[in-house]
Amino acid sequence: MKFIVYGAGALGSLFGALLSTKHDVLLVGREEHIKAIEKNGLKIEGATKGIFYPKVKWDGSRYDVVLLTTKSYDTRKAVKEIKEKFGKIAVLSLQNGLRNEEIIAEEMGMEYALGGITSQGATFLQAGKIYHAGKGETVIGELNGKITERIRKIVDAFNECGIETKISRNIKEEIWRKAIINSAINGLTAVLRCKNGEILRDAYAEKLLEEICKEGIRVANAEGVEVGNEVIQKAKEIAYKTADNISSMLQDILKGKKTEVEEINGEIVKIAKKHGIEAPLNEFLTYAIKAMENVRHLG
Amino acid sequence: MKFIVYGAGALGSLFGALLSTKHDVLLVGREEHIKAIEKNGLKIEGATKGIFYPKVKWDGSRYDVVLLTTKSYDTRKAVKEIKEKFGKIAVLSLQNGLRNEEIIAEEMGMEYALGGITSQGATFLQAGKIYHAGKGETVIGELNGKITERIRKIVDAFNECGIETKISRNIKEEIWRKAIINSAINGLTAVLRCKNGEILRDAYAEKLLEEICKEGIRVANAEGVEVGNEVIQKAKEIAYKTADNISSMLQDILKGKKTEVEEINGEIVKIAKKHGIEAPLNEFLTYAIKAMENVRHLG
Repeated sequence: MKFIVYGAGALGSLFGALLSTKHDVLLVGREEHIKAIEKNGLKIEGATKGIFYPKVKWDGSRYDVVLLTTKSYDTRKAVKEIKEKFGKIAVLSLQNGLRNEEIIAEEMGMEYALGGITSQGATFLQAGKIYHAGKGETVIGELNGKITERIRKIVDAFNECGIETKISRNIKEEIWRKAIINSAINGLTAVLRCKNGEILRDAYAEKLLEEICKEGIRVANAEGVEVGNEVIQKAKEIAYKTADNISSMLQDILKGKKTEVEEINGEIVKIAKKHGIEAPLNEFLTYAIKAMENVRHLG
Repeated sequence: MKFIVYGAGALGSLFGALLSTKHDVLLVGREEHIKAIEKNGLKIEGATKGIFYPKVKWDGSRYDVVLLTTKSYDTRKAVKEIKEKFGKIAVLSLQNGLRNEEIIAEEMGMEYALGGITSQGATFLQAGKIYHAGKGETVIGELNGKITERIRKIVDAFNECGIETKISRNIKEEIWRKAIINSAINGLTAVLRCKNGEILRDAYAEKLLEEICKEGIRVANAEGVEVGNEVIQKAKEIAYKTADNISSMLQDILKGKKTEVEEINGEIVKIAKKHGIEAPLNEFLTYAIKAMENVRHLG
């Protein structure tokens, strides 16, 4: 198959590298990173080790699918660019947040939008070099839940290259589950400035984790998405398994970068308001983390 | 007059020192601090400069009033100790929080409880030495609002010694106003880990300041306390005037100490629940700051 990875940061580069061993992969990303890959290949350390050689220059040929791995606040801009450069093409979001597939559908057309979530963990080390922090399952699906030829081909390609992946008949549920878990773990660790596992070491933090999940579940249900209290247990499992990780939102805060809080917690608030319900915890987190992006903080 | 200062930390030592120039003052506080004062006097730097010599050993004589300046989570314990050691005596709370006067009334008897708030700023430097960060008004009053002989004597003594003080006929309102402002400025700066002034430099932080104040106002009104939106403006003024200060709650977090969050934000939540209303922002702050006291935090 022929894959474009659009927004080849840590996660996109990982997918691109693994897929490039058996498929035609074109990476699109920041200039410095792409130039380093062009010169010396893409180096990966950690759970995957090696040097990989995805393409970094488009030969003008037609590709099958784009893996979208930009930050979710860049989704609309990215899809517009993809459409302009590569024409109409299927786009599979592997991002955080709740609205990526919707935005793809709006910009590219409904039939081009595919949804996905992944628990693969990757961090950026330097231009041309990433760290594969840990393997994890990937789930992808058509928005209408059908098992199409294209989704089967993608899942086969992923699994063939060591990216453990399954198809979901209800990818929206999966995306909501992940977003709720992210809203709680990312949101709390950013505010408490702690590693994921600390949440489970303190009764107050654990209670907040539960309450933020419950709020997200109520909003999902109002939206007609059937997720339940299993999400709370799953959030705790993930906090436990990733105890020593610094969440992406806290990493962004510590680096003084923009976070995805508006696309995760902020989106939960927007959807709550649409249905006339309250989401005060997510609202507080959204405002507080937006403030944290900006204020000069101590110690 | 004869004053006991019970819980002579930074603020109590400041009041004790100033009053000792014209009155009989007995300081009760931590052993190391008291021993240093006994040996070399109490040194003050900043807005007040000098060495002061309050008493540190009780001669067994009868005192007129106790200024209670412990942390508010120690109020009950302190009042019990005062009653045991000095017998029934009027106790004027100059603490943070909403329930100090109530606790004094419960432990010592209604007629012994006096309420107060102060905007004097003081920080502890080392045993025997404090820093007077800034002068500010003090307001005291009888819980029933009457202008009694004793409250007049106290206010005269305070003013005589350079502690600008007035009597309020509704000290409960004043205490609520201060608690709401503390709930917002202390709560937010602790979570955002920033100096007071940063709150006004960011639109999200300023919006949260407003919302936390509004929530406190709703709870106060439910409790029958007539405070209004003037509190929001006052909170902003205080954040502006104390822009470069680190709030006491954030200081406690940075030092790994217990905060007064349960006595300020937590009390607002309890009173809200008593009246069947919600206080989700204060509830979040209470839990998050209790968690922050405990979790290992980064950067």
